[in-house]
Amino acid sequence: MAVTLEQINAADRTEAARLLDGLYEHSPWIAEAALAQRPFRSLGHLKQAMADVVREAGVEKQLALIRAHPELAGKAMVAKTLTSESTSEQGKAGLTDCTPEEFARIQQLNADYNARFGFPFILAVRGPRGTGLSRQQIIETFARRLENHPGFERAEALRNIHRIVELRLNDKFGIEPTLGNLVWDWHESLARHSDPGYAEKGQLTVTYLTEAHRAAAQEIAQGMRECGFDEVEVDAVGNVVGRYAPERPLPGPPPKGEGGKYLLTGSHYDTVRNGGKYDGRLGIFTPMACVRELARAGRRLPFGLEVVGFAEEEGQRYKATFLGSGALIGQFEPRWLDQKDAQGIPMRQAMQEAGLPASIEAIAALQRDPKRYLGFVEVHIEQGPVLNELDLPLGIVTSINGGVRYQCEVTGMASHAGTTPMDRRRDAAVAVAELALFVEERAARDGDSVGTIGILEVPNGSINVVPGRCLFTLDLRAPKDPQRDALVADVLARLQEICERRGLRSSVEPTMRAAAAPSAPAWQARWERAVESLGLPLYRMPSGAGHDAMKLHEVMPQAMLFVRGQNAGISHNPLESTTSDDMQLAVQAFAHLLAQLAEETQ
Amino acid sequence: MAVTLEQINAADRTEAARLLDGLYEHSPWIAEAALAQRPFRSLGHLKQAMADVVREAGVEKQLALIRAHPELAGKAMVAKTLTSESTSEQGKAGLTDCTPEEFARIQQLNADYNARFGFPFILAVRGPRGTGLSRQQIIETFARRLENHPGFERAEALRNIHRIVELRLNDKFGIEPTLGNLVWDWHESLARHSDPGYAEKGQLTVTYLTEAHRAAAQEIAQGMRECGFDEVEVDAVGNVVGRYAPERPLPGPPPKGEGGKYLLTGSHYDTVRNGGKYDGRLGIFTPMACVRELARAGRRLPFGLEVVGFAEEEGQRYKATFLGSGALIGQFEPRWLDQKDAQGIPMRQAMQEAGLPASIEAIAALQRDPKRYLGFVEVHIEQGPVLNELDLPLGIVTSINGGVRYQCEVTGMASHAGTTPMDRRRDAAVAVAELALFVEERAARDGDSVGTIGILEVPNGSINVVPGRCLFTLDLRAPKDPQRDALVADVLARLQEICERRGLRSSVEPTMRAAAAPSAPAWQARWERAVESLGLPLYRMPSGAGHDAMKLHEVMPQAMLFVRGQNAGISHNPLESTTSDDMQLAVQAFAHLLAQLAEETQ
Repeated sequence: MAVTLEQINAADRTEAARLLDGLYEHSPWIAEAALAQRPFRSLGHLKQAMADVVREAGVEKQLALIRAHPELAGKAMVAKTLTSESTSEQGKAGLTDCTPEEFARIQQLNADYNARFGFPFILAVRGPRGTGLSRQQIIETFARRLENHPGFERAEALRNIHRIVELRLNDKFGIEPTLGNLVWDWHESLARHSDPGYAEKGQLTVTYLTEAHRAAAQEIAQGMRECGFDEVEVDAVGNVVGRYAPERPLPGPPPKGEGGKYLLTGSHYDTVRNGGKYDGRLGIFTPMACVRELARAGRRLPFGLEVVGFAEEEGQRYKATFLGSGALIGQFEPRWLDQKDAQGIPMRQAMQEAGLPASIEAIAALQRDPKRYLGFVEVHIEQGPVLNELDLPLGIVTSINGGVRYQCEVTGMASHAGTTPMDRRRDAAVAVAELALFVEERAARDGDSVGTIGILEVPNGSINVVPGRCLFTLDLRAPKDPQRDALVADVLARLQEICERRGLRSSVEPTMRAAAAPSAPAWQARWERAVESLGLPLYRMPSGAGHDAMKLHEVMPQAMLFVRGQNAGISHNPLESTTSDDMQLAVQAFAHLLAQLAEETQ
Repeated sequence: MAVTLEQINAADRTEAARLLDGLYEHSPWIAEAALAQRPFRSLGHLKQAMADVVREAGVEKQLALIRAHPELAGKAMVAKTLTSESTSEQGKAGLTDCTPEEFARIQQLNADYNARFGFPFILAVRGPRGTGLSRQQIIETFARRLENHPGFERAEALRNIHRIVELRLNDKFGIEPTLGNLVWDWHESLARHSDPGYAEKGQLTVTYLTEAHRAAAQEIAQGMRECGFDEVEVDAVGNVVGRYAPERPLPGPPPKGEGGKYLLTGSHYDTVRNGGKYDGRLGIFTPMACVRELARAGRRLPFGLEVVGFAEEEGQRYKATFLGSGALIGQFEPRWLDQKDAQGIPMRQAMQEAGLPASIEAIAALQRDPKRYLGFVEVHIEQGPVLNELDLPLGIVTSINGGVRYQCEVTGMASHAGTTPMDRRRDAAVAVAELALFVEERAARDGDSVGTIGILEVPNGSINVVPGRCLFTLDLRAPKDPQRDALVADVLARLQEICERRGLRSSVEPTMRAAAAPSAPAWQARWERAVESLGLPLYRMPSGAGHDAMKLHEVMPQAMLFVRGQNAGISHNPLESTTSDDMQLAVQAFAHLLAQLAEETQ
């Protein structure tokens, strides 16, 4: 008999604790302490409350929780007891039939892991979809996590414990993240399409207008049709566009004659080389799931929904980053058609081969009239570690950071490392070191600025020569342009001051400058209400990476929602991951935003 | 009629100032102020006093002094008035016959120089030997100095002014650094021998037992014979050994049967590739000049003099650094004979081709019995910027620094430069930056320790990726082993603390460890008295570089004397330079040390 949240909220403390028994391994104190936060507004709220208890319990209790899980080595049925999850959990993980080699490998990893960290390896073997990781995936994760820093690995173990609890909660409450699972499966299916040379290695690469790219477009279009979109098309640049008409079409010109204001949403379906499955695509599939629910219920909204799968955002095959969303705001440079890829194929030819008109006129016609739109929203995987680290499934984007990049060089005087006293050096590298610490401190002072020296090199350095030159790059970003400009000014002034003081010369060459795209306050507020409606804490954060919303920002209000990434939020990497439970929340948040808009525009 | 120091010391202030008129360009105030330091004990003392006045005058007066020199551009006879030196000075510089191209080049350099620094280019065109630089040398120096940091170039201009004054003083006092010139010319002559591939490019390279190396040995041996050494030989490892017998040979075994204690001295005649002319050789020629003077005067000392030109110190052709001096203390590894050079020639074969016995027994027989020696002294060019910067011709070495070297790596987590907040980074490069500043500060705290990160690199760094790895080296040296060890301990502890705090991992691999060789106090005191006898200030300093004295240090007391290098003390570089005036002082100091020893052992 499934437990309900109402029961938990209504029960006395002892009874409530009993209902929640068995979530955290031999650690009932966690659920008990979390009960102080009743009434729980959602399962998400309950999970959050328990995660908070663990976070605030301190390292000793955290280690005790981790160690409460059975030790892998020394167990007879090692593969079956990799974690303390029940036999049915293990069964789902496909760990029942280890080969002798796999068994030996796990034993070795386990010994190494214990020696390094002093606590057992914890992995939510049911994985991000709840259906189980393969033995191969488990072994690879084990090996990878062995390389983590101890502090990080302890947190990763706790995150896996929270995930195990999340799956147990679903079982206990008899619920399933149905829409999240659906969206997760859509990603999995779409990831079957990959460019030649990558597909063979099991890597995901979908670059502009390749065969895999066109197959992906067709699959998205087909998915939209099945969801019940009224119109679905692949446009002149390869964007997949699905429209779900409003209940009372307004008179006037397009979108497509039926009139009425539309909410524009979507993200990109192209990928970087050997990228992740969720980058971009989550922003297409999340609203698709909402439209599917509306259509199945036979509901219309006072406004239309236009969901766009942008064909090109990553700039991998051609140097035309944001080509897909750019086309919607009239930004398409005719000369791009002549740009060639690495194989010498011009974009025009690639378009023709994809059955697109390859005509400037047809592309220009894609430009949207902002007056016909309410605004633009985009759901995206975070691509960063913040939500993962804070145990938060969703984050509110306050702004897409503006950025500048510089290629820099400091020149001092190379000299003998033995014979040049410390106070007579012109050490180019130490000057850059001083700047690096300033960049770190200055960006941190803003709270939401970031500054990075990503390339750092003493050319032809020798162990016994004081560095006479040092090459480095600067990447400086902030949620607002004035904030970014102040950061840049401070950093460059400091560089000059350091060089002045140390008797060095510097050169600074700008290579990139992008304006910030702050979220429209009304739209950010809608995302915030949507997240609050799920009983989840609000967390506001800038987007450090660029997104299609940056382009639409130029012509209409926009705001983004971030979804937590697993594995420290790694992105542009096959390890990019998120759970179907988090996707479920993203769909629910999107549905709530639609409901708010419906109410507002009634 | 030449001026004398006695006149200057005896004259009233006005008369003394008149006698010193015309030294500093339109700036009689310098000599006038220096007179406060009378009585001058030597010309060196007078020069020092004037340099002190300039140093303490402040930047404004220094710039006025520099600007008191005529401007190069705009003069009709540009080439003849490159500096304000008199026509006879210019004549010596060979600037009278510029080609139109050279003239145009100088005009351009002059314009660039003035634009960059705001003061005229000053160069002591009579050069380090007083006989004049070539037009080519002048133009190259001009172009090179254009790249200097303004503060450094202002000091370099003042140093050139002091050098001009030094030459004018010689003229005024009617003196010439005869022995310094002789020693300078010996270096110039010896530098004619250079290995194939380098000789053709005008570069100096003399590696172990090449044809050029053997020719250099023969030239040194011949020079020793001409100086009046009693015995001269090339020994079993190629060292050139000259002995000047004591006045009363003591009974007993060798050196060479004549008995008696000897003072051992010398340095190496091999060079690095494309090296300087003075590194090592100055320590051979300086005592040779002293023996020459003794022999010419028919004088013997109570002790013998054994001057060794060591065949191998730089470890260029074979990895057998200090082979020459090592052989004298019984350090020769038999396996070295099988070591091959880059062309595959074993050392044994190279020795045989050079007419050496290539026998372990013959090499072992080179080992000296310390009881037969008073000690070891070595004169060496500083190979660093200190004396040059302080306007001091000679420096007293307190110790040859002990050093350790490490190859290091810090591992963090590569992540997106845009999406990883500052407080969630594991930036390997910023950690190394923090260490670099600590190394600088910690070494400086000792005063005479040095610490260098010479190699620094983020492997495969990208402008938009937080560095996940950083490779670097550590080179840490100090005059005493405990001081060095404390430095090393602090630096490694800080690295660990930084990595701990930042959640990073580090690896540290030692690649070199050499013990410090502190000067024997009694011998250092002899050098100090010698320098004081020249009316020069004492300046004590550690040697950051290794020297042959390190080897002899293992079996007998040793102490070194440093001679100022020009061009910021650059070494292992064709720009390595020192003046014949400074060489004169080195010879005088060495002669004084011999006189002290003679007095002590009478």
